[in-house]
Amino acid sequence: MSLAKALRRKPIARIEDRRPAAAVDDVVAVEEPLELRVAGRSVAVVMRTPGHDRELAAGFLVTEGLVRRRDDIVDLVYCRDGRGEPAENILDVLLAPGVAVDFARLTRNVFTSSSCGICSRASIEAVRAQFPAIAAPFRPAAGVLAALPERLRAAQAGFAATGGLHASALFDRDGKLEVLREDVGRHNALDKVIGHAFFAERLPRRDAILLVSGRVSFEIAQKALAAGIGCLAAISAPTSAAVELATASGQTLVGFLRAGRMNVYAGSVG
Amino acid sequence: MSLAKALRRKPIARIEDRRPAAAVDDVVAVEEPLELRVAGRSVAVVMRTPGHDRELAAGFLVTEGLVRRRDDIVDLVYCRDGRGEPAENILDVLLAPGVAVDFARLTRNVFTSSSCGICSRASIEAVRAQFPAIAAPFRPAAGVLAALPERLRAAQAGFAATGGLHASALFDRDGKLEVLREDVGRHNALDKVIGHAFFAERLPRRDAILLVSGRVSFEIAQKALAAGIGCLAAISAPTSAAVELATASGQTLVGFLRAGRMNVYAGSVG
Repeated sequence: MSLAKALRRKPIARIEDRRPAAAVDDVVAVEEPLELRVAGRSVAVVMRTPGHDRELAAGFLVTEGLVRRRDDIVDLVYCRDGRGEPAENILDVLLAPGVAVDFARLTRNVFTSSSCGICSRASIEAVRAQFPAIAAPFRPAAGVLAALPERLRAAQAGFAATGGLHASALFDRDGKLEVLREDVGRHNALDKVIGHAFFAERLPRRDAILLVSGRVSFEIAQKALAAGIGCLAAISAPTSAAVELATASGQTLVGFLRAGRMNVYAGSVG
Repeated sequence: MSLAKALRRKPIARIEDRRPAAAVDDVVAVEEPLELRVAGRSVAVVMRTPGHDRELAAGFLVTEGLVRRRDDIVDLVYCRDGRGEPAENILDVLLAPGVAVDFARLTRNVFTSSSCGICSRASIEAVRAQFPAIAAPFRPAAGVLAALPERLRAAQAGFAATGGLHASALFDRDGKLEVLREDVGRHNALDKVIGHAFFAERLPRRDAILLVSGRVSFEIAQKALAAGIGCLAAISAPTSAAVELATASGQTLVGFLRAGRMNVYAGSVG
């Protein structure tokens, strides 16, 4: 892969042994929207890592059952921006004459994202316009954060049995577990946690900590912001778009929260 | 969580030290479609683990920005089937009078799945009707499979740098790596691999092995079937719906492929 396109440096604060260590640069995976068009018509926006976009578009159309043979696709071209330069986040698939696409089925079936822009900046602005920023950034204690992964794992009954379930959990500022949900879908586990807080009439939650068992994509950060949760923490890595959204919206974003260590990608930890 | 709903036993063949071990039962995470309706109108089908469906629906609507206050939702009720029993895969959200939902925005933004049924059996039948089964099941060699995870990891340059990228790779029947792609999205990494094979005019690939770095959901198994790939292997767990689709379509499905061990969920390994 083209690592130059796929990776991006971000300044972070690293915490070790529950205490601040050096401020360093970390490398995160780039996540940017790609709008797919077929014969000029928009069919999906996917959040992807740039690179091999033509393969992504072709594979998407094959696995949606819309294209079967190599000859069905004549060309795949990036749209041109206002200055005539290729806009690398809009890719148009040109089909051979006679190849018919059932657009109605496609718009029913595709994974589209909540982003509607053609670059991550536009996606972030769209989300910021929809949901208010965290008014006063929440600064969780490093010691509280460091204790959470073990509590998450202890409560993951389904994961323990299958190794196949994602978990999301909401903790209060002192690290007390309020709710944990597991699901085969990362988004679903998070939606269930947010739904639980919603029914308890406990949203927004500026001073709560949401911990997810996996990675933090743009969509996960967006859901946390929609719920007004001040701190989003993850066992694994965030994407570039998640870091950028958290920074723009006042969320505290912590990744690689493991064994008393963590990386702070947005906001700060006390 | 209700583990009875979330977990399901599946008979598997376990392979250790690259040789067949006992046939046993394994526990997999249940994945079933849930159709969400708002005021009787279908707005999304999500593949989820049953349980806490009302929270899932509410969290979904909150994080899509369609509902803000607890009072916006009057009730959430399962639809009734033909015999008047609750159909636990269709949930209808009843809104308070005066709460307006912009359905156009919702259908643009939501994550829907390719499944269109209201149970996993119907979803599997819909996929089976769209894509042909693997005509003659492919029986990969255990020794070949056991060697793949190390080759995958060695080629994951982006993951090595970030810890935040999913990988998909296609190997031939002898375990030779043909293409590996990384992406923040699991589906994208797989679409890119399939797109690569498509451009090389090497689909379908009955005797190829697709290896994914994470888990195998229904959608991942569907994409592999759409490409006509005979064997799907994963470092981590499959879901119930993935196992059921693979079984119905003649795919060989291997999970927890690690350190010379593996679980065979569908088809067989030689």
